[in-house]
Amino acid sequence: MTVYAGPVQDLIDELGRLPGVGPKSAQRIAFHLLKLPKDDALRLARAIAVVKDKVAFCQTCFNIAEGDRCGICADPRRESTIVCVVEEPRDIVAVEKTGEFKGRYHVLQGAISPIEGIGPDQLRVKELLARVDPEGIEEVILCTNPNIEGEATAMYLGRLLKPLGLKVTRIASGLPVGGDLEYADELTLGRAIEGRRDVDG
Amino acid sequence: MTVYAGPVQDLIDELGRLPGVGPKSAQRIAFHLLKLPKDDALRLARAIAVVKDKVAFCQTCFNIAEGDRCGICADPRRESTIVCVVEEPRDIVAVEKTGEFKGRYHVLQGAISPIEGIGPDQLRVKELLARVDPEGIEEVILCTNPNIEGEATAMYLGRLLKPLGLKVTRIASGLPVGGDLEYADELTLGRAIEGRRDVDG
Repeated sequence: MTVYAGPVQDLIDELGRLPGVGPKSAQRIAFHLLKLPKDDALRLARAIAVVKDKVAFCQTCFNIAEGDRCGICADPRRESTIVCVVEEPRDIVAVEKTGEFKGRYHVLQGAISPIEGIGPDQLRVKELLARVDPEGIEEVILCTNPNIEGEATAMYLGRLLKPLGLKVTRIASGLPVGGDLEYADELTLGRAIEGRRDVDG
Repeated sequence: MTVYAGPVQDLIDELGRLPGVGPKSAQRIAFHLLKLPKDDALRLARAIAVVKDKVAFCQTCFNIAEGDRCGICADPRRESTIVCVVEEPRDIVAVEKTGEFKGRYHVLQGAISPIEGIGPDQLRVKELLARVDPEGIEEVILCTNPNIEGEATAMYLGRLLKPLGLKVTRIASGLPVGGDLEYADELTLGRAIEGRRDVDG
């Protein structure tokens, strides 16, 4: 629907291409930007330009990076024998916050999803395989999301990596800490029972 | 929460200031922009810059305009004796689509809302009053939203404009065309009954 004069409609169109921004939100954001003082609005434009200029993906693990290597790949204190495979750079932030992992990462930049036409070739799978020998990787933790796409991706990678003689693990599914058995869905509870562990003592 | 390297966090912060964009959406949009080809992402940055450069508000009615006057104020075929008062420029588009109105507009750029600290002084009320005499305005249609803020604004403007000897009208509230009595809320149905009209014939 084109109802506004050129530049305003252009802005609405561009905003409408962003994920999670529908035509109504795009219009709302455009009018918000119109009302803002010029400097405030241009700060967003500049932030986009700076990010596209300075930030790219790490050539090793495909995390976001300023330069060719990300901070984690460039850090010699991180163990290089264990690699945690995630779908997106933001997943690295989630894992880092746990403080449980001292190895390196590999970002697939997506998950296998036949419906969206995303197969292994669209992901950074080749690049993961190419890291195994040179970096002396011994264990790969498959840390994709516990949904259909993430599970399919983990299963695919498992079949690919196991024959190379690597230890391949998958993060546990189960009840969230602080959760309540009564409100757990049956799939999650089923996984929690299936993945039960010996009690020490 | 600052977890990303400088430029990425800057972008997330700027995106998070947009209306309707929370921290999670801001992060999602930022990563989407990171993944996009450079040209596509910069198109958005440019669209913002062009809008802030070229588009401003009409000095007469405060609609969006490229230049000092908007297309409607500059159009000599529009009746200048009748003015439709709306809250936002997008409301003009809604009224224009009906094809029922051939007069001019006045955009308040908001509505009275004590909770948000918006009083008449923050709106383009003075500018509306200043138009009455020079333009020979005879009727003002109060076309603010039929919610609390819009009704309060309409009531305020009514009290201000009536003593000037103008005809002041308010758009009708009632059941939407194609609506269903059974599903109408009682406030709307009450308004519809209160605003009942004589049947011709």
